[in-house]
Amino acid sequence: MSEVYATRRSRLRDHVSAAGTTAALVTRPANVRYLAAAAPRGSALLLGKREDLLVCTGPPEDRPYEGRPDENLRLLVLPPNGAGAGAGGDAAVAAADLAVAQGADSMAVEEHHLTVTRHRAVASVAPGLRLGDLGGAVEQLRVVKDEEEISCLRIGAEIADQALGELLESILVGRTERHLALELERRLVDHGADGPAFATSVATGPNSGRPAHRPTDRRVEEGDFLTVCLGAAYRGYRCEIGRTFVIGTSPADWQIELYDLVFAAQRAGRESLAPGAAYRDVDRAARHVLDSAGYAEALPPLTGHGVGLEIDEDPQLAPASMGKLDACVPVTVEPGVHLPGRGGVRIDDTLVVRPEADGGPELLTITTKELLAL
Amino acid sequence: MSEVYATRRSRLRDHVSAAGTTAALVTRPANVRYLAAAAPRGSALLLGKREDLLVCTGPPEDRPYEGRPDENLRLLVLPPNGAGAGAGGDAAVAAADLAVAQGADSMAVEEHHLTVTRHRAVASVAPGLRLGDLGGAVEQLRVVKDEEEISCLRIGAEIADQALGELLESILVGRTERHLALELERRLVDHGADGPAFATSVATGPNSGRPAHRPTDRRVEEGDFLTVCLGAAYRGYRCEIGRTFVIGTSPADWQIELYDLVFAAQRAGRESLAPGAAYRDVDRAARHVLDSAGYAEALPPLTGHGVGLEIDEDPQLAPASMGKLDACVPVTVEPGVHLPGRGGVRIDDTLVVRPEADGGPELLTITTKELLAL
Repeated sequence: MSEVYATRRSRLRDHVSAAGTTAALVTRPANVRYLAAAAPRGSALLLGKREDLLVCTGPPEDRPYEGRPDENLRLLVLPPNGAGAGAGGDAAVAAADLAVAQGADSMAVEEHHLTVTRHRAVASVAPGLRLGDLGGAVEQLRVVKDEEEISCLRIGAEIADQALGELLESILVGRTERHLALELERRLVDHGADGPAFATSVATGPNSGRPAHRPTDRRVEEGDFLTVCLGAAYRGYRCEIGRTFVIGTSPADWQIELYDLVFAAQRAGRESLAPGAAYRDVDRAARHVLDSAGYAEALPPLTGHGVGLEIDEDPQLAPASMGKLDACVPVTVEPGVHLPGRGGVRIDDTLVVRPEADGGPELLTITTKELLAL
Repeated sequence: MSEVYATRRSRLRDHVSAAGTTAALVTRPANVRYLAAAAPRGSALLLGKREDLLVCTGPPEDRPYEGRPDENLRLLVLPPNGAGAGAGGDAAVAAADLAVAQGADSMAVEEHHLTVTRHRAVASVAPGLRLGDLGGAVEQLRVVKDEEEISCLRIGAEIADQALGELLESILVGRTERHLALELERRLVDHGADGPAFATSVATGPNSGRPAHRPTDRRVEEGDFLTVCLGAAYRGYRCEIGRTFVIGTSPADWQIELYDLVFAAQRAGRESLAPGAAYRDVDRAARHVLDSAGYAEALPPLTGHGVGLEIDEDPQLAPASMGKLDACVPVTVEPGVHLPGRGGVRIDDTLVVRPEADGGPELLTITTKELLAL
């Protein structure tokens, strides 16, 4: 496995060298984990002139699902913060010092992650070091996944499907959004997740269909739409599933109509996933269905996004996004409509883009998308 | 209530004016909430030359425990991100634009919170605006709490005591750290918490006594030490309690000795809390007890810290901290010893510093600190 990490670092090093920089400092946790197999709290990864180093503010904990640092990587553990001067405890500052010691004259840093204050501390410990911007270089490497990564996402999706399936078998009326969300998170862990991939969203009645709705104390009532959005983190990889149900025996006509419409939009989005498809075209495929039905105002700004070590990664499937899908890119397709005061529908899947010769997009979240009356 | 927020902003404005700056931009969420009563996602608060403004990237959600923005404050809601150019969706950038429109020539920003990239975007939208550093000015205002804030902490502490008390009545042997942590978090919400104040820590056997241990799949066994650390968030305010128990009928001698020692250290720390006491002296009072018993190596870098809108605020009760306690400052006192391979003890309370005339430090977390055998 550790060859994977060495290969990733070598690809990043090629990028950094091509930009004329001799060292790189990676601090964004998901990026550190991608390149070093683990990102202990407060850690920073130095791609040095002579050697790569993972600098940590404490020894990595022995927790299998947080990963163990790549054994080919030298590990430097700083003494605890309280003991010395403030800046001494910052792994980024220590890494800058080491970059100079290795003879680097320039270093690219993640300006979208480092605060102004930390950036200044890095600059002041190494005044001879020319600092540049690494930009989203690591994020771009992360977009296309290998089969090992996809396998983690697949297991995470299975776990989320199981947790959701069990919830549907229990009695829902009278329970609050917050309790249902907590129960789902417990079930994710029961089934082997590291934890929830993001804050589980449960939305009932007028809250249903709101993107990223945070659960309230509202109780589930007969006749409600119920929207659930959850995901499992598995070995660091995060997937997402969202479904909308009706509570009670017979959905109202407006509920059936709205559901069918969102389902059609979501299917159009899924079916447009292919290597070479423009991000904005996937968005447009789903959005067009809802637009034509007169819901242009009620739509969220994007139709889907990449998933991986973070739940919201590149690419963004949105009207203004530039770029095209590659094979082996996992994305969500999650259109929805929310009508203020009434509620709405959201249907969300995680899929992996695959060429048609391999059967087209691979659906990871397989819970039914029929409108269930619970 | 809204006078409270206007008064806080006016104190910050005095600070900013004294530093010769005409506007200030607050982006750190806890700081925004402190000054504006709420911090909707992605929001930024402008203390402008003519008017204060809360800029949000979406309408604030109607969730009582996240607060509603102060009604005396003008609210500006930006259109969703996906619609226009990237920078348009950044509340900090929009606020900088408004600062210029109000005639400001200089603006202090939170350099310890803004990334280099966002700082550059702020600078480029307002090239005539001289940017300075607000530093930790708002954090310093937040150190001394009013009685309303302390009352939220007190209710949070009661909730944490209740959740912990219920756990102790259940069967523990054979359950995993992760399940116990999830159950505690569910109970916090049952009793009215917004949610957990931080990731609940449950540590058994060799993990017991580790600071901020993240729960694993290890199961509770007879003879274990069990360390639990949890807290409730209530109306945004976060408290903390930690206790260590023994599983089984009779603790071993080494367990009793270690417990008594940590208890003595924690009491020494608590008893040294008084207005005017130096931060480092509180730390030393607790640390000295453990040092003298030969545990200097096994000690965490700090003995306690402030709590409030964040779980880890100023002051830090640590050997190198400068400063003295004031009345109405809530802090934790949480010494512990962890012996690698064996486990350890941690005892953690949240207290409010009060003058002796008012009865001395007010203990918020009242669960017994006797060594319970469960």
